[in-house]
Amino acid sequence: MAAQLEISDLSVAEPPRVEDLELREPRVAAPSSLAKLFTDEPYERASHSYGKSERDLRRAFRGEFPRPIDLVAYPGNEADLVNVLAWCSGENVAAIPYGGGSSVVGGVEPPEDDTCRGSVSIDLAGLGRVLEIDTTSRSVLAEGGIFGPALEKELKPHGLTLRHFPQSFEFSTLGGWIATRSGGHYATLYTHIDEFVQGLRVVAPAGTIETRRLPGSGAGPQPERLYCGSEGALGIITQAWVRLQDRPTFRASSSVRFSSYDDAVAATRAIAQSGLNPANCRLLDHLEALLNGSGDGSHAVLVLGVESADHPVEGRLARAVEIARGHRGEEVDPAAGSADAGRDKTAGSWRDAFLRLPHRHDALISLGLISGSFETAVTWDQFDTFHAGVLAGIKNAMKNVCGTGIVSCRFTYVYPDGPAPYYTIIAPGKAGSELKQWDAVKAAASDAIIDLGGTITHHHAVGRDHMPWYERERPDLFGRMLQEAKSVVDPAGILNPGIVASIDD
Amino acid sequence: MAAQLEISDLSVAEPPRVEDLELREPRVAAPSSLAKLFTDEPYERASHSYGKSERDLRRAFRGEFPRPIDLVAYPGNEADLVNVLAWCSGENVAAIPYGGGSSVVGGVEPPEDDTCRGSVSIDLAGLGRVLEIDTTSRSVLAEGGIFGPALEKELKPHGLTLRHFPQSFEFSTLGGWIATRSGGHYATLYTHIDEFVQGLRVVAPAGTIETRRLPGSGAGPQPERLYCGSEGALGIITQAWVRLQDRPTFRASSSVRFSSYDDAVAATRAIAQSGLNPANCRLLDHLEALLNGSGDGSHAVLVLGVESADHPVEGRLARAVEIARGHRGEEVDPAAGSADAGRDKTAGSWRDAFLRLPHRHDALISLGLISGSFETAVTWDQFDTFHAGVLAGIKNAMKNVCGTGIVSCRFTYVYPDGPAPYYTIIAPGKAGSELKQWDAVKAAASDAIIDLGGTITHHHAVGRDHMPWYERERPDLFGRMLQEAKSVVDPAGILNPGIVASIDD
Repeated sequence: MAAQLEISDLSVAEPPRVEDLELREPRVAAPSSLAKLFTDEPYERASHSYGKSERDLRRAFRGEFPRPIDLVAYPGNEADLVNVLAWCSGENVAAIPYGGGSSVVGGVEPPEDDTCRGSVSIDLAGLGRVLEIDTTSRSVLAEGGIFGPALEKELKPHGLTLRHFPQSFEFSTLGGWIATRSGGHYATLYTHIDEFVQGLRVVAPAGTIETRRLPGSGAGPQPERLYCGSEGALGIITQAWVRLQDRPTFRASSSVRFSSYDDAVAATRAIAQSGLNPANCRLLDHLEALLNGSGDGSHAVLVLGVESADHPVEGRLARAVEIARGHRGEEVDPAAGSADAGRDKTAGSWRDAFLRLPHRHDALISLGLISGSFETAVTWDQFDTFHAGVLAGIKNAMKNVCGTGIVSCRFTYVYPDGPAPYYTIIAPGKAGSELKQWDAVKAAASDAIIDLGGTITHHHAVGRDHMPWYERERPDLFGRMLQEAKSVVDPAGILNPGIVASIDD
Repeated sequence: MAAQLEISDLSVAEPPRVEDLELREPRVAAPSSLAKLFTDEPYERASHSYGKSERDLRRAFRGEFPRPIDLVAYPGNEADLVNVLAWCSGENVAAIPYGGGSSVVGGVEPPEDDTCRGSVSIDLAGLGRVLEIDTTSRSVLAEGGIFGPALEKELKPHGLTLRHFPQSFEFSTLGGWIATRSGGHYATLYTHIDEFVQGLRVVAPAGTIETRRLPGSGAGPQPERLYCGSEGALGIITQAWVRLQDRPTFRASSSVRFSSYDDAVAATRAIAQSGLNPANCRLLDHLEALLNGSGDGSHAVLVLGVESADHPVEGRLARAVEIARGHRGEEVDPAAGSADAGRDKTAGSWRDAFLRLPHRHDALISLGLISGSFETAVTWDQFDTFHAGVLAGIKNAMKNVCGTGIVSCRFTYVYPDGPAPYYTIIAPGKAGSELKQWDAVKAAASDAIIDLGGTITHHHAVGRDHMPWYERERPDLFGRMLQEAKSVVDPAGILNPGIVASIDD
């Protein structure tokens, strides 16, 4: 890092201790009838006040909690949750659902002080059970608070998997995935959790909504789709039926490198439009490949993988590689494409780096470096102009506020009609100003993304951080429709106020 | 037909002539400033008053138009449409969007007389242009009133296709498909038009909503999904960006027959869950196969087809047939599976029957027979009980009101988590009572579908006919959310009143 950024004085700082935190007194007290569900322990309050973004880690690392969550509630069942929401509605206390707390967009942070009398983080860890597994239709009914690993552990003995692995997999929950339209790490076909949702049960202050579990329907606007992306503003997802898949048994993977990024993009587009539907089709640009240990910086690398639970996949992989070769791609290790090889080395490096990244972020913070990511999606016809503009916006901002910095790009997902580019930056922080520096770079990136036709988020959600740009992306009338729909289920306006279903009047 | 139903006196009746229709006077007159956009010609009024359901054909055939559309408007562009909607809002006149008029659920029919002062059918034939073709991202921007064949004709020179072929393809429009969540005839993967919509432009009395065209996004609830299935109640779709595919060049198909329906269902489920994603995977039960000329009544027939624009597909077809054989399926004509054979005979018969069906319905009506269909979707684990219950409900109703009747079933679509069964009935009508007879059979089928866990519609939409059952399927609070959302864009409540975004207080 020191070499890449040409700075020599990187040193590791220590995080604060919880006993040193100075949290203001809770502004509200738990009602005595529900006292056993609430806690105001400092660790609980502090850890529920932020998610895991650069802004969050930065503030937490410095011990800055000027607007902490007042209370944390742990409902043990749906009846508890109904009671907590009734109390919040009656007392004008913001109710902020909390799954694994992995938001990187300010999705679990309390609103401004003047919004409500207080704030409660509702931690759903107590609603974490698998309720029913239907092996015939391959679906599972589970509670919203179940974490990724716990869910997969229960599915494994049945040979089934949700096969939804967002980067936050270990630290996030089924309900959180649905509320934030989480994206899995598979590159084509099913990625957003939206596509797996078969039915939902939601608790809101005005009552409970339970949709019929169905493989498909054409009966009016799909209710589940209104809840996918509702980010806690329209209710709290207590149960969901979700679609499963058989665990893959056939796998093949390979990697192709390209001197020219344009060639690499063209090859990736052709594969995305081929109907081969690879499980992995990640394009790492020259720098991203270098930082991930998948290249030496002279090539972009396309990591390809194909999977099936039913039939051999070598033919599909070979065809994908053939398409890439047609765009001057060079297979990194041709022998690796066989079924025996499983994952090839480059694919393995990429995967390791992917899983390590959330942990690496902590280390970068402790080194005083600014690090973060921006992600979006855009159609292929717009990509070249879009990419150049976003890179220019980010680099210009880093130069202005950090002096230097690096930005790399990978495609986290490819649709037949466009990629989902994911930009990662690392820049030197100026002690005490890191937050302002980060905010400036993030704002420049977000402005470029919205000005150039992209979406403010492909899979990180909106949260508090993206609201200004979300309001530029979202049609105004649609925003008002969401707001009116919210008023039906949340008449007191206490559900995650200010997020998604609200408009800036 | 006479033999199947054991009746001997079938004879052909003549439809009425338009000059013999007795339509009441229009209750409202077109405003002089917009006079050139409106017509009150009897043929126009009559033909816009009904769709194409059994109820519609029956009433039209008898010359019964007790509640006709008062006026038909033909906006030539979006500005015209804005003016027409403003006039409807100001005068409390129901505005009913009309694409191709192929609704089989009362979707284009005016509401009860006391709902509004009058009714205008807004025919969108004047908004039927292709505006832009993006061959890079493979998508097209077209106006909502474009018909299927006109759209495909413009895409063909580019080697592209929307590849969305509902049975109404010739007689329905892009905007109509989106508003009704139309289903195409491909059996797996992309079927509902919802999945093809990249961006929308909608005109409502309160203003215009235009969403950003994006390959994917995680920014809040997806606005396009609220409009998919809105059936004209939330605005009129004037433009849509939709995703295209390359035209398939590799094809293989075959058919497998089963003595046992249970075996056939198990095989179909296994193929639906295999990841082979056949373009065709239609299971015809014993009677449906007989009526379609695909069998002699002693077997259920599974019609399989695989397609690609990129790579050979024989391997996928062979694997699908192998799965079917594992469930005691017998390939009807093993030689037909080769690429040279293209479509095999059984697949060809099925396809011909599929395309012929809307035309056949007219003939059945003129024979005095009652004919119609019910369609739904349900998860695989519930299918056996569901299917038995629905068949029993339909047969019992036919016996009670028609004395006899036949019911057959095919799967129009198979999801990994369940099929979309489509039931067709033919029964003898009693002259003058056919409508009551049909309504009774339809109500019995709908009750069974809802009581047993299905959806009131997989791809026919809600319309006026399905509203009572839709309200049983749809969570009440979600209904109220739709109603409040509607009040934002349609404060006067004139957009297709009574359909979808309304609740029975």
